[in-house]
Amino acid sequence: MGIDLKSVFSQIDADYDNLKSILKEAVAIQSVSGDPSRRDDTIRMVHWMKERLERVGATCKLADLGSQKLEGKTIPLPPVILGALGSDKKKKTLLVYGHLDVQPASKSDGWDTEPFELVEKDGKMYGRGSSDDKGPVLCWLHAIQAAQKNNIELPVNIKFCFEAMEESGSVGLEELLIREKDGFLADVDFVCISDSYWLGTKKPCLTYGLRGICSFFVEVTGIKQDLHSGVFGGVVHEPLQDLMWIMSQLTTVDNRINIPGINDQVAPLGKDEEKTYDDIEFDVAEFRDSVGASKLPTEDKKTLLLRRWREPSLAFHGIEGAFYGPGEKTVIPSKVIGKFSIRIVPNMEPEHVNKITIDYLNDLWKKRGSPNTFNPRPGHSAKPWVADVNDPNFLAGARAMKYVHGVEPDRIREGCSIPITLTFQELTGKSVLLLPLGAADDMAHSQNEKNNKWNYLEGVKTLLSYIIELGNA
Amino acid sequence: MGIDLKSVFSQIDADYDNLKSILKEAVAIQSVSGDPSRRDDTIRMVHWMKERLERVGATCKLADLGSQKLEGKTIPLPPVILGALGSDKKKKTLLVYGHLDVQPASKSDGWDTEPFELVEKDGKMYGRGSSDDKGPVLCWLHAIQAAQKNNIELPVNIKFCFEAMEESGSVGLEELLIREKDGFLADVDFVCISDSYWLGTKKPCLTYGLRGICSFFVEVTGIKQDLHSGVFGGVVHEPLQDLMWIMSQLTTVDNRINIPGINDQVAPLGKDEEKTYDDIEFDVAEFRDSVGASKLPTEDKKTLLLRRWREPSLAFHGIEGAFYGPGEKTVIPSKVIGKFSIRIVPNMEPEHVNKITIDYLNDLWKKRGSPNTFNPRPGHSAKPWVADVNDPNFLAGARAMKYVHGVEPDRIREGCSIPITLTFQELTGKSVLLLPLGAADDMAHSQNEKNNKWNYLEGVKTLLSYIIELGNA
Repeated sequence: MGIDLKSVFSQIDADYDNLKSILKEAVAIQSVSGDPSRRDDTIRMVHWMKERLERVGATCKLADLGSQKLEGKTIPLPPVILGALGSDKKKKTLLVYGHLDVQPASKSDGWDTEPFELVEKDGKMYGRGSSDDKGPVLCWLHAIQAAQKNNIELPVNIKFCFEAMEESGSVGLEELLIREKDGFLADVDFVCISDSYWLGTKKPCLTYGLRGICSFFVEVTGIKQDLHSGVFGGVVHEPLQDLMWIMSQLTTVDNRINIPGINDQVAPLGKDEEKTYDDIEFDVAEFRDSVGASKLPTEDKKTLLLRRWREPSLAFHGIEGAFYGPGEKTVIPSKVIGKFSIRIVPNMEPEHVNKITIDYLNDLWKKRGSPNTFNPRPGHSAKPWVADVNDPNFLAGARAMKYVHGVEPDRIREGCSIPITLTFQELTGKSVLLLPLGAADDMAHSQNEKNNKWNYLEGVKTLLSYIIELGNA
Repeated sequence: MGIDLKSVFSQIDADYDNLKSILKEAVAIQSVSGDPSRRDDTIRMVHWMKERLERVGATCKLADLGSQKLEGKTIPLPPVILGALGSDKKKKTLLVYGHLDVQPASKSDGWDTEPFELVEKDGKMYGRGSSDDKGPVLCWLHAIQAAQKNNIELPVNIKFCFEAMEESGSVGLEELLIREKDGFLADVDFVCISDSYWLGTKKPCLTYGLRGICSFFVEVTGIKQDLHSGVFGGVVHEPLQDLMWIMSQLTTVDNRINIPGINDQVAPLGKDEEKTYDDIEFDVAEFRDSVGASKLPTEDKKTLLLRRWREPSLAFHGIEGAFYGPGEKTVIPSKVIGKFSIRIVPNMEPEHVNKITIDYLNDLWKKRGSPNTFNPRPGHSAKPWVADVNDPNFLAGARAMKYVHGVEPDRIREGCSIPITLTFQELTGKSVLLLPLGAADDMAHSQNEKNNKWNYLEGVKTLLSYIIELGNA
């Protein structure tokens, strides 16, 4: 860090009540993108944020995404904020992504407090969106304000891409970004997203990898309608019996994948890479307890993290077309569709995974020898993503975190996909840093979502430090 | 047959328009027991029938069953008609069971005509209830009227038990019958039920056996809530993976049961019994086409019928707790309950089947070696039923059918359960004859339910002949 931010950090701490009141305002706007009756609030949230960005000097455009059909009604999509603060050609440009919409929440779901009213208890600010993702978005705002108050010139231009449909599939966003490839996105040098979480609750981290996914549908038919199991039981080949058998052949009891060749494209683990796992702060017992399992397929820290982040996995989600209600129904389902997905890691290619999986399913079907009709097909897929932890963007993030927290952040991956990450990387050709500010126990998407006071203040400081460090990148 | 019924039969044929108009009246009453908004009509149907029984001289009591809660509302249950025609101590007593309620139907379901308006086309009377079971109930009425018109003294007293909740689980009926064991049911010598179907469309038959059922729930848990398959895929033992494997071990591809000892209690097939299968009119190709299968586990007539009626079978119905909607959902379900049932045949005892099945499930679980929690448990069960085809009741039915149709009826079983059959047998200690009047293609419970003009008239004649034959039983 070229400059001393200690006094600025003290100011940020002292300004906490003000920062909290602004977050409280944001939380109070019920921008639930999945609820059509809340669409006006969701749009209002976008305007609220635009105004705040303009107050710090940003120029904002609202990109119209048209409308969508939801629950039978056509309703407008919330616009996307495309903002810019600074346009100095001599400076590099940072693009910040965040989202202003939230998951649904109501007290009756099991919240201890009103979800849309920010309430502080024991150093924790409870409220929907406090951590996912209104809190982190506001941390950017406050970091910029802190610099301005202290006459610190920002060493980079900052662009903002804030949407309000993230919790509902980011409808329309990718198309917008593709259209803006040579426009809004043309001069971007770095991208940063604060919409993920620390691995634990104490040690900061940078996220440099995400798994991709290949989804599959396995359809078995053979009788023309659902049949009475009393009248027809024993004299038909039941599609569901075939499906259960096929599904049962895909994994071992320890959740390893049986598909031949599934590991062929997995990038070998480098020696240096392997070493990074040694220092990662991760408590297996705590993880096991949080999941509620009595035993995990592996309880070795390194093996477990590798399996979560760096190895493919296969999960069964369910079956469409069979009886799913409570109680009993003596039916023989006529058409069943098994659903499973495979998480993929670098350098696995979705096309390859789809091919070997469908081939294996067809081989199993031949082995099964059922006269029913078998139709396995791939669903949606997303590529895995991995970044270079030694590129200038990541190094700036790491320096900022160390400056604020006093410790080197862990370099982690996530087992899930954040598709927008790859979209930004591919459209800008630049480095995307996932810089999580929230703790693992923030309960995003769940009851009693919160953001720790401590994390929130450190978040503002981290983003300010990161912006300044980018001047040295 | 001691008397010649030829001229009576001619009268019945000549009276067809009148008989049809009465069925038309009954069909027009929308006695859908499953629809609370039709409960008044359902009760009205009971009163309508009571009045018609009284017109032929029966004494009828309406047994009140109290009320039920349906879709949040408390509504009265339709009463049960307990009627009696004749009380001559020197005569034996026949108890007739039938039901006056029907399955839901609406033109928009795919009916070609209004379901509650009886319409005749090409010798077929279309309308809900025409075959299940208003038509057969009215055949009893018309048989009695035909005897009375011709001054034929009925050789037996006849009792009627007509309910109007059969399509909705016969709520309250069993309790009523238990209360009436030493009352209304005390002097019953024979029971007859006309609420099933011929095996085909041309040859009459008597039904002397029904399979029972043992239902099972197989619950697997192991994680405390549904998990994101990206974040947790690969590092937990998935309950659904365990369940699929367990379920896949229960049957072979040809739908044979793997449970050790499952056939131990199956009554051996007698030589004479086996011979009865030779003559049964049953077209395997037609059956296969009606099911819509390309191939059946067996296409030999005798083997197929034995499997349907005389061997246990196992069917999978579905899974509770897993994703069942269309599309994709990347969830790892935390608690899944597999549903399957085994149809059982004489002399299999539900307690024994439950025990060996749960034992086998537990053995499989041990073999699986998963740390998840396994909880297999039996659901509801019903005993199988088989009658002596050579008892006086069945022989009277057979003679009646031969007299009317000119051919010996097939003796058949059904693969499903009709629980009331066993209830009557156990409470009266007497023979229960299932005497089907409808053809296999009558489409009970489905669109375009019909009763053939021919079957309807022959039905009236068959029941009259049966009543008279009981005088010789």
